[in-house]
Amino acid sequence: MILQKAAIEALPQRTRAALINSLPGYKPVVLVGTINRAGQTNLSVINSCFHVGAAPPLLGMIIRPAPDGTERHTLENIVETGCFTLNAITPDMAQRAHHTSARFPRDQSEFDACGFESRYLEGCAAPCVADSPLQIGLTLAEHQILQINGTHLIIGAVELIKVEEAAMRSDGSLNLSALNIVTATGLDTYHSVGVGQRFAYAKPQKIPETL
Amino acid sequence: MILQKAAIEALPQRTRAALINSLPGYKPVVLVGTINRAGQTNLSVINSCFHVGAAPPLLGMIIRPAPDGTERHTLENIVETGCFTLNAITPDMAQRAHHTSARFPRDQSEFDACGFESRYLEGCAAPCVADSPLQIGLTLAEHQILQINGTHLIIGAVELIKVEEAAMRSDGSLNLSALNIVTATGLDTYHSVGVGQRFAYAKPQKIPETL
Repeated sequence: MILQKAAIEALPQRTRAALINSLPGYKPVVLVGTINRAGQTNLSVINSCFHVGAAPPLLGMIIRPAPDGTERHTLENIVETGCFTLNAITPDMAQRAHHTSARFPRDQSEFDACGFESRYLEGCAAPCVADSPLQIGLTLAEHQILQINGTHLIIGAVELIKVEEAAMRSDGSLNLSALNIVTATGLDTYHSVGVGQRFAYAKPQKIPETL
Repeated sequence: MILQKAAIEALPQRTRAALINSLPGYKPVVLVGTINRAGQTNLSVINSCFHVGAAPPLLGMIIRPAPDGTERHTLENIVETGCFTLNAITPDMAQRAHHTSARFPRDQSEFDACGFESRYLEGCAAPCVADSPLQIGLTLAEHQILQINGTHLIIGAVELIKVEEAAMRSDGSLNLSALNIVTATGLDTYHSVGVGQRFAYAKPQKIPETL
């Protein structure tokens, strides 16, 4: 089946959103922890996190300027305090994590409403999710509104990482299978992932070996 | 284990890159197909693709301005022709896909060197990967160099989608498990993914049900 632009644009809004959200494939899914100046915490699930660079260490995410919805609280808190956390999700956390996407009122913290414990790590004013196996504290490094559709691009500088030492391999990479974290598809599905195939640094002359 | 910024910055460059590339979790991984004005094709694997919006349908990716490496050819071709394709990867394709990250000379196409057949779809000047189960044709919609680290942000407008009709659910979402596509971690690992848990649209009052 080939869908041309006109056919895509003719889809009902929710159908098109579900399709386009499926196109990247399996996506990172994390809980974003924030706090405002008054001390009100917020937690929201996002699946638009991506690597921007390692030196300096930077992660990006896209936040939609919803006229309502929880994501606006997240965005406002990040801009207000200049910090946020990203927290990986395990299968046990997936249902509660999905619940954070509901439209909770501003004065209700998704930490409480969805059953997550907050924890503060030294050097980061925003709350982490206590039982997440990978907690990352970031400061706001760049914020821009993309001309093309008015979504917000947020880039954070990694300030601290909390992870089990056993999950870090000698080469620096994390064994995410050992951490039992999930990946997401579309807007609503959370998947466990197997060990995978790992390949050597690629060179032109030969097919990369399996490690 | 908690790694503070100073400890992260003190890591050797490759170790830090492996760690920071692991932080988003499981990432989309796709082959980017391009062609230059002279007709030379290029194919490179990237794991920084993300959803930008559904109306209009937009996908983003980050391309590092490596002084060498294949990604520069991809970037140059996209800027030169204004179009590119994204192609999902199956487990059978993973090793060959990883091979495209090697530093091939400009006059050698990774389609040939890594064993992929190119295919052109009507309405898209850039080549698709013939045996990919999800082929997406895009035109360049926004290109900027991020101030924070000089990487290139590329946003493409989705012009066409080629996918098996059976993989598209009635709500518009794609069944990626049925397409047998992989996800990536770090810089070198490709994982198959199980069926997953799917949840209903979330509302504040109750935990979302499993679909």
